[in-house]
Amino acid sequence: MVYAGVDIGGTNIKIGLVDIKGAIVADNYIKTDKSKDYKGILRDIVADIKLLCEQSGIDYHDIAGVGLGIPGVVDSRTGTVSYSANLGWKDVPVVHGLEVESGIHAEAANDANCAAWGEYKFGASRSMDNVILVTLGTGVGSGIIIEGKLFDGVASAGGEAGHMIIVKDGKQCNCGLKGCWERYASATALIEQTEEAMQKHPESLLHDVVKEYGKVSGRTAFIAAEKGDEAAREVVNNYIDYLATGLINLGNIFHPNAIIIGGGVSNEGPALITPLEDKVNAGLLASAHNPKVRIIGASLGNKAGIIGAAALVMQ
Amino acid sequence: MVYAGVDIGGTNIKIGLVDIKGAIVADNYIKTDKSKDYKGILRDIVADIKLLCEQSGIDYHDIAGVGLGIPGVVDSRTGTVSYSANLGWKDVPVVHGLEVESGIHAEAANDANCAAWGEYKFGASRSMDNVILVTLGTGVGSGIIIEGKLFDGVASAGGEAGHMIIVKDGKQCNCGLKGCWERYASATALIEQTEEAMQKHPESLLHDVVKEYGKVSGRTAFIAAEKGDEAAREVVNNYIDYLATGLINLGNIFHPNAIIIGGGVSNEGPALITPLEDKVNAGLLASAHNPKVRIIGASLGNKAGIIGAAALVMQ
Repeated sequence: MVYAGVDIGGTNIKIGLVDIKGAIVADNYIKTDKSKDYKGILRDIVADIKLLCEQSGIDYHDIAGVGLGIPGVVDSRTGTVSYSANLGWKDVPVVHGLEVESGIHAEAANDANCAAWGEYKFGASRSMDNVILVTLGTGVGSGIIIEGKLFDGVASAGGEAGHMIIVKDGKQCNCGLKGCWERYASATALIEQTEEAMQKHPESLLHDVVKEYGKVSGRTAFIAAEKGDEAAREVVNNYIDYLATGLINLGNIFHPNAIIIGGGVSNEGPALITPLEDKVNAGLLASAHNPKVRIIGASLGNKAGIIGAAALVMQ
Repeated sequence: MVYAGVDIGGTNIKIGLVDIKGAIVADNYIKTDKSKDYKGILRDIVADIKLLCEQSGIDYHDIAGVGLGIPGVVDSRTGTVSYSANLGWKDVPVVHGLEVESGIHAEAANDANCAAWGEYKFGASRSMDNVILVTLGTGVGSGIIIEGKLFDGVASAGGEAGHMIIVKDGKQCNCGLKGCWERYASATALIEQTEEAMQKHPESLLHDVVKEYGKVSGRTAFIAAEKGDEAAREVVNNYIDYLATGLINLGNIFHPNAIIIGGGVSNEGPALITPLEDKVNAGLLASAHNPKVRIIGASLGNKAGIIGAAALVMQ
């Protein structure tokens, strides 16, 4: 039995055929053609699934389901996208549309929830029943698993931990609020913090690292810090502190078995994860009397979205 | 069928007999005698339940269960209090102890969770499946109901929204962290904010209100604000703003049907609830595309703990 997983982004759509064990049999990506309406985009997706089938010798009719991950508010019960800023969609019956177009059973969920579901089913947290995936990218995405089920609130409008206010009246966020966690803990924020430190410290190794790698990225400060640069160490420490603040909040509210960290920044491994786990657990209420909340790097990388979307239709 | 509900506090223990519809048949309170060990306290409770039975003509053997609400971390699955600062208990097998002492089936949960369960079963939110109760008292307590079930995390160590950090590096909290929500949104915090305004504004009506009522309380600023006092209005607005900040965080994470506000401050009614509901919903992500999160005053008052504890044993 094979399942299709589709991870729709504002620029690209990642598509994969996934087996029952969560292994990707074939995958590729197509451009998100925003000049088309949603039905046009769904037709592009179905055409690509057929192409993947041909290329990998799989009979299209053997595909048991198609799962869709969507950047926006998706009511997974009704299969409707209430709102997606990235795609410009509003009240789009995406599951029905895809079933009509493909002739295959479909399900849809928010993209961060799909990634969390993928990690839960086949990745870093597959032995745990209560986990939160936090993805550090342009923003901070989150997916919440409670007692082995995706939790996303009434009409799937919850699960938006990136917009937790951690600095009241702090930095302006795109969402309209001030001081949201993602303004301090996203990869974008880390780059901003690195650039600020470079301006303040012309002597810092940060400048050499940027010359060597060609641009400022989420890795810059970690690389310079490892070389012993003081300004870079400060950037890394402050960034981990901001990240820990939001994780402590999630820990005190949910006390999950583990929080999984995904997104490019999570590739820093122990330099990020070890101090983070210490800070988070030191901040939890009555931590001496409670089980530890483990902090773990994501293990499916940027395929978590495809695999999780496919896993939506595996039950 | 009658159930006993017990709401243990650091000073008093409220005890009630509750019928299957959540109505209190008889109730009173006893002192929490901390000179006794937990078994001694449980004996006091059982003696009082027997007294209540006698007084109200109920046969003790007709009590179908006893529910306990406890201020601290209670693993409701094992019936063990991991830790209670208020009672000085650590790893106390309270459910087993109570069953031995009373000969009746028992259950236990954290007190804030009991209050939330009471409001969910018989109070303000009984028609809704996803609700959060936030209690404004000495601290900020919270109880979370997801899909009709109490949620409190692994080993019941979650559900502590009062210790969400909303002002990074802000005011010192008893828990060791800085900037916890309860340092800004509890009744204690409101009193502190009122006192600060009184020092800054010797001309304010706040002083007259305090003279009239004998002391500064959570009501002081609301009373003076209603009389048109500018300094008092500022206190109320800022307080509602702090309260809204944490509720926006809970709204973006959980998107429940409603958030119930309990504790003495909730008696302010529309002067509190109306601006709060507006601010919270204005702060939610994609709020125009999602169902509103209702903000509702608690309806069981200070009996929610007893009723909710009794409701623990009603299933």
